[in-house]
Amino acid sequence: MKSSLSRRISAELLGTGFLVAAVVGSGIMGDRLSGGNTAIALLANTIATGAALVALILALRPISGAHLNPVVSMAEAIRGGITWKEAGLYAIAQISGGIAGTACADTMFALPGFSISHHPRTGAPQWFSEFIATFGLLLVIRTVARFSPDWLPFAVASYIAAAYWFTASTSFANPAVAIARSLSDTFAGIRPADVPAFLVAQLAGGFSAALVSNWLSFQSSDA
Amino acid sequence: MKSSLSRRISAELLGTGFLVAAVVGSGIMGDRLSGGNTAIALLANTIATGAALVALILALRPISGAHLNPVVSMAEAIRGGITWKEAGLYAIAQISGGIAGTACADTMFALPGFSISHHPRTGAPQWFSEFIATFGLLLVIRTVARFSPDWLPFAVASYIAAAYWFTASTSFANPAVAIARSLSDTFAGIRPADVPAFLVAQLAGGFSAALVSNWLSFQSSDA
Amino acid sequence: MKSSLSRRISAELLGTGFLVAAVVGSGIMGDRLSGGNTAIALLANTIATGAALVALILALRPISGAHLNPVVSMAEAIRGGITWKEAGLYAIAQISGGIAGTACADTMFALPGFSISHHPRTGAPQWFSEFIATFGLLLVIRTVARFSPDWLPFAVASYIAAAYWFTASTSFANPAVAIARSLSDTFAGIRPADVPAFLVAQLAGGFSAALVSNWLSFQSSDA
Amino acid sequence: MKSSLSRRISAELLGTGFLVAAVVGSGIMGDRLSGGNTAIALLANTIATGAALVALILALRPISGAHLNPVVSMAEAIRGGITWKEAGLYAIAQISGGIAGTACADTMFALPGFSISHHPRTGAPQWFSEFIATFGLLLVIRTVARFSPDWLPFAVASYIAAAYWFTASTSFANPAVAIARSLSDTFAGIRPADVPAFLVAQLAGGFSAALVSNWLSFQSSDA
Repeated sequence: MKSSLSRRISAELLGTGFLVAAVVGSGIMGDRLSGGNTAIALLANTIATGAALVALILALRPISGAHLNPVVSMAEAIRGGITWKEAGLYAIAQISGGIAGTACADTMFALPGFSISHHPRTGAPQWFSEFIATFGLLLVIRTVARFSPDWLPFAVASYIAAAYWFTASTSFANPAVAIARSLSDTFAGIRPADVPAFLVAQLAGGFSAALVSNWLSFQSSDA
Repeated sequence: MKSSLSRRISAELLGTGFLVAAVVGSGIMGDRLSGGNTAIALLANTIATGAALVALILALRPISGAHLNPVVSMAEAIRGGITWKEAGLYAIAQISGGIAGTACADTMFALPGFSISHHPRTGAPQWFSEFIATFGLLLVIRTVARFSPDWLPFAVASYIAAAYWFTASTSFANPAVAIARSLSDTFAGIRPADVPAFLVAQLAGGFSAALVSNWLSFQSSDA
Repeated sequence: MKSSLSRRISAELLGTGFLVAAVVGSGIMGDRLSGGNTAIALLANTIATGAALVALILALRPISGAHLNPVVSMAEAIRGGITWKEAGLYAIAQISGGIAGTACADTMFALPGFSISHHPRTGAPQWFSEFIATFGLLLVIRTVARFSPDWLPFAVASYIAAAYWFTASTSFANPAVAIARSLSDTFAGIRPADVPAFLVAQLAGGFSAALVSNWLSFQSSDA
Repeated sequence: MKSSLSRRISAELLGTGFLVAAVVGSGIMGDRLSGGNTAIALLANTIATGAALVALILALRPISGAHLNPVVSMAEAIRGGITWKEAGLYAIAQISGGIAGTACADTMFALPGFSISHHPRTGAPQWFSEFIATFGLLLVIRTVARFSPDWLPFAVASYIAAAYWFTASTSFANPAVAIARSLSDTFAGIRPADVPAFLVAQLAGGFSAALVSNWLSFQSSDA
């Protein structure tokens, strides 16, 4: 890591801001234009989110690693790639950036910067979805980062694009994004009361994946 | 191959599980949201499946080869890349993982883990479709694996995304996935009674492709 | 070129067959499922065609160059990359393969192998569209093949996906595909009487692009 | 830079021409076919624009850098990669090429070459959108060009595809494209009176990004 800590933290803040702006903004646009067909709105949301992830991870990984997600930073700390203090600073930057991203998206669409979401996302199937979504995300990140790091931007973007559709929760899989999405009463929103259970499921999924991918990635040449 | 056999088998199980979860789950989500427009549901299903294949093959190929498909393991055994015993173990892991993936997807969408599909997929055009779909898949895999192995994840995902639309059967092209899809009475399902003929067509297509690609890939420098 | 001529010609035949099957087959599927919304059918057609091109060019380029298009073979002969006799044999294989691809797609969808298309595609705007479509295609192929050959599959697939939408003719840009599409009275069809003018426009566009790209690609290090 | 200035300028003219033809042409096609569902038209517009960017940047970057955008040329001049005189010539070529691209697209769709757009795109949210869109575009271009130049075509295309949906203005982010789009009274058009404010927002966004990315990209090995 050759970039200074302030640059790395700024990159995480800026990147998570753009990511949340892409998620929230494309949700608003898709919802407005799709004439009530939610599948078309979610297709637009999917393409925008996946494409934003490709661009942002390509742009910012050489600076900060482009975690853009506290669970990813946590897994990186478990692995020893960054210190726990750095992971904490990253998480603060990601959450702050995400909240700024919400305000930015809402403002572009002529809405108040913040509004409390009324979109309920709760119940065991949703929590199980977030567990699976985050487990798969971290499994993909950990194995690709180890064996084919150049492809990480495409692996992450592809995984999230798929998970938007194959999980019942549309795969938040990211505490910073979940918190930021609670502050916009639009397509991508989530009721603040439903956020804590999402965070628990995400942390559990990410932690499990860290263990599994650790075992799975062991190769004889490592011995 | 530097990973232990138990790790390789676990990777095939996990990978096929996620693949089937992506196929079945995105089918349910697409069907629920598309307001009865089947083309939109299949577009969502296509994007989710293709994107999941990119992520899963990137993640797991360094561990197990990421066959995720008994026909691919069979072709690999024909070529001598793995033993027939390994191919058999791979197939068991793929089928088990696929079935678990069905249960996982159904559970995320608050459905019973298993339900017998009533979706008829039978008749000569469907069988011919599966023959062509699997022939093309194996032709692509064998030639790309030989000449441009780094691109395999994108070649497989692109091929399957195309074949979802250009074959009448939406291109199962995978015995483990066909079996798993018979256990979910949702968009992606297939009547259990229709599965055996699909498997025969898939094996015939894959076997033919192994022969053709073997001949086609011969180059003067091989002599 | 290390593959024997018979292998190269077989690869062109097989590849163009799969390409046409993808174009015609996905057109039928898109048309059947889209409930009369032509934009959705064309989106499916676009994704299937672009994805098929990625897979086929990745698979077959190391064997035959994966021209899959008589205009590309003509440009390759102009450049001196293959002989004119080889270009002629390639064109015969491409046209034969394309016709077989139509029969294959129609059969998968339970239609007669061949049926004469009644889809009119004529008039100056259509011809101008084919000129522009083929000019752009060859410009992309010639410059990418020269400067970044590894990326050619993605450049070609991306260009064609875009040109399906930005030309009024949906960018045939390929004489073998145009002839093959005249033999299926489905979504992707073209009236046989309208084919000759398409071929003239395509050859003119391809020839112009060969000249322009030749000039454009000259660099001081070539002197 | 090994290509002569006349070749580089021709590449910028041709490339921006094709880019605008892709934007305007796919807008017309999407609008005509989508039966009034604007989200589907914009999805088609997005896919065509993103795919065209991949193909054009892959094809022309080795010749001219494939800026295709006066703001990119300005940022390149600020960085010292080209002279200000070259940037001026590039901008003239881009604007001229863009205007020709509009005429070309309109002609393909049997419309008059030029028609003044009546599509209003004005107000603070639109201007803020263009600022954000161009800021993000230049941030991505500058960091990717520095750290992972091979991926630039995909980073730019992905960013623009996302920004079509996450900004309220559908992310013009390009003065040459904005001017050219004012001359087609179709889906992608913009009222000429609304263009100047877009240009100001784009230049401000690009200039800010040049400063931020300059700071962000500094690494200890640069000292």
